[in-house]
Amino acid sequence: MVLSEKIFMVVMDGLGDRAVPEFRNKTPLQHADTPNMDWFAANGSSGIVDTISPGIRPGSDTSHLSLLGYDPYEVYTGRGPFEAAGLGIMGKKGDVAFRCNFATVDDKMNVIDRRAGRVSSPDTTELIAALQGISIDGVDVLVAEGTEHRAALVLRGDGLSSEVSDVDPHQLGPIKKCLPLSPEAKRTAEIVNEFVMRTHKILDTHPVNQKRRQRGLPAANALLPRGAGSFPEITPFPIKTGMKSACVAGVGMIKGICNICGLDVLDIPTCCTGGKDTDMIRKAEVALEALRHYDFVLMNIKATDISGHDGKADEKVQLIERMDKMFGVIREKLPEDVVIALTADHSTPVSLGEHSGDPVPLTIHSRHVVRDGIKHFNEADCGLGRLGRIRGKELLPILMDLANRSEKFGA
Amino acid sequence: MVLSEKIFMVVMDGLGDRAVPEFRNKTPLQHADTPNMDWFAANGSSGIVDTISPGIRPGSDTSHLSLLGYDPYEVYTGRGPFEAAGLGIMGKKGDVAFRCNFATVDDKMNVIDRRAGRVSSPDTTELIAALQGISIDGVDVLVAEGTEHRAALVLRGDGLSSEVSDVDPHQLGPIKKCLPLSPEAKRTAEIVNEFVMRTHKILDTHPVNQKRRQRGLPAANALLPRGAGSFPEITPFPIKTGMKSACVAGVGMIKGICNICGLDVLDIPTCCTGGKDTDMIRKAEVALEALRHYDFVLMNIKATDISGHDGKADEKVQLIERMDKMFGVIREKLPEDVVIALTADHSTPVSLGEHSGDPVPLTIHSRHVVRDGIKHFNEADCGLGRLGRIRGKELLPILMDLANRSEKFGA
Repeated sequence: MVLSEKIFMVVMDGLGDRAVPEFRNKTPLQHADTPNMDWFAANGSSGIVDTISPGIRPGSDTSHLSLLGYDPYEVYTGRGPFEAAGLGIMGKKGDVAFRCNFATVDDKMNVIDRRAGRVSSPDTTELIAALQGISIDGVDVLVAEGTEHRAALVLRGDGLSSEVSDVDPHQLGPIKKCLPLSPEAKRTAEIVNEFVMRTHKILDTHPVNQKRRQRGLPAANALLPRGAGSFPEITPFPIKTGMKSACVAGVGMIKGICNICGLDVLDIPTCCTGGKDTDMIRKAEVALEALRHYDFVLMNIKATDISGHDGKADEKVQLIERMDKMFGVIREKLPEDVVIALTADHSTPVSLGEHSGDPVPLTIHSRHVVRDGIKHFNEADCGLGRLGRIRGKELLPILMDLANRSEKFGA
Repeated sequence: MVLSEKIFMVVMDGLGDRAVPEFRNKTPLQHADTPNMDWFAANGSSGIVDTISPGIRPGSDTSHLSLLGYDPYEVYTGRGPFEAAGLGIMGKKGDVAFRCNFATVDDKMNVIDRRAGRVSSPDTTELIAALQGISIDGVDVLVAEGTEHRAALVLRGDGLSSEVSDVDPHQLGPIKKCLPLSPEAKRTAEIVNEFVMRTHKILDTHPVNQKRRQRGLPAANALLPRGAGSFPEITPFPIKTGMKSACVAGVGMIKGICNICGLDVLDIPTCCTGGKDTDMIRKAEVALEALRHYDFVLMNIKATDISGHDGKADEKVQLIERMDKMFGVIREKLPEDVVIALTADHSTPVSLGEHSGDPVPLTIHSRHVVRDGIKHFNEADCGLGRLGRIRGKELLPILMDLANRSEKFGA
């Protein structure tokens, strides 16, 4: 009787890149000195991954869903629910979520600043606190703070529908009335409109906004919902896979995705910031510790994505080399019954400053995985490996099989 | 803000091949001296492409549809419409197209030669000219000349249906009556039968056929429709992709496909014949000039396909080496903001003399594409490249992503 092994999926956010002329047409990952990642490649099987499909530019949300084995075209119901989950509101079936922004409106509800002067915390923290506990016609209203002027709204109650129009006019001028786009959505639209009026009343006279006016700043006196979406019905990951599963991440959106999928989102020390200054080794230690109690651990390291967005090639190299030191610790401490995957959710080329659809490198290491002779972990060498070119959603079944956890099809 | 780049897709028709014993089991492309194609491989990412899917033998029509990002299983409605488009009849929604052949019939409408002695131009040109302007029961009849005994027929009018049977009996003996295969097709079948009788009358007494009889040749005195198909509803390529798009090709069928897909089919000098004697460098110059005004240019070079069909291995090698000189000019003159793909629509192995389902080589070069270490552009080396094995319809999304033109899915 062969025992099941555990799975450790390390997602290096935005790791993939393109040829950088200053690096003699190598990518930052090719250019960096990565003896530990290379050790995993040399002791494993490698390939490249289109997390969605060839040429499709993934978001971090859709790509993580894929890496967790879901088809994002089936379960991704729009940004509203996933952003809300990322901001800590755990929606459930029947809930309707919206993205919101704080705006400045005049006394006739004309939008005069769509971002309320890019209002941010601590102002937004206080304002959001003042909006807790609202209930409209038996529907609970949950709001959560996002970055800068952004927020999320979730309506929870019976008979709600996401088939409603935006309140945000997407330009200056009168706010829109939320309209039902189907007969069943009539009540939801009324609740949204009531929400807008009631929160306006609270926000307009709030001390935070009185102070903002005194300082000559636009008042954040309206919260404008847009992009309604239903929370998806997702078979929880632990039920789908039979694995007790955890997520180690510093970024809200990744936590939200994992939360929606039913993974335990673990607390991490404050030194693991989800930023460039994060303590990667400390984070890896949390993940390694979690592997003692969990069958599956997903760890996301965000830093590389940020330097990709910032277009900083040298910084991306340095972050990769710091990450390699983290892999040195992992290599040393990894229990032998763990199947580990090194990969990324998408590429964020420094020449582009945005996500791209370039496939990302993948190396799988375990005691028993076939060694394919690839010596370096990067976009080029992994592309020559025996795993070939796979889709994001195919990775989990491959890992589960290597961990002796997959079901037999046939006899 | 990163600017979008342009895309140059070079399709070497029938380029792919199989091992040739006289070439010590190399393919013509492996055997040929191709320093310029190899330069693109050495400065790019390579892979192999099943233009339809593994093992499926593509036509030039279905494969070009795939390379343009369409699913041929969805949009390919049969040879009739695409051949008609290739022969210059731009069909529209509601039109019904047929392939036809000139045949010799006796006075009881028995087919005695299905190809009328392989009649060809100038005889067919004159005969087709005599059939212009026919209208039957309010339906316009459009006929166009093909190669040798081949022609196309398009019916244009209200209430037509492609659900009708063939007139061509596909063997000697009595012609078939066109029958409706569904109740709605009754009128269309009647029109087809009337078309056959009316054209027979015109053709049988035509001076061209009188002369043919005098020379002892079979008269081309009937035009037999088969393979009815409706013109497909295709989202125009420029609308689907947002790219101003052009095609540079010498062959009617490729022009027809590109025309149906809404690309601008550019005029080319008469020295670009679409045959073996074509001036490839002149054609490439037309394409390079087009790249100044267009976002996307597809260039088809037909010559290699012809020597494949003719089973001439040495000739195919020579044509490939001439094509390589063309790539020398492209390499020299290509603007740096262009993503270029070198590929083929299908293989035409000299040992087979027909299209085969063997995957074709692919190299993508651009400023920023990852260099994967592949040094030679051919069926074997490209198969080891990092692009892996992709489907024809995946190529366009990959190129659009590399040209920074794709949409993000998710956040």
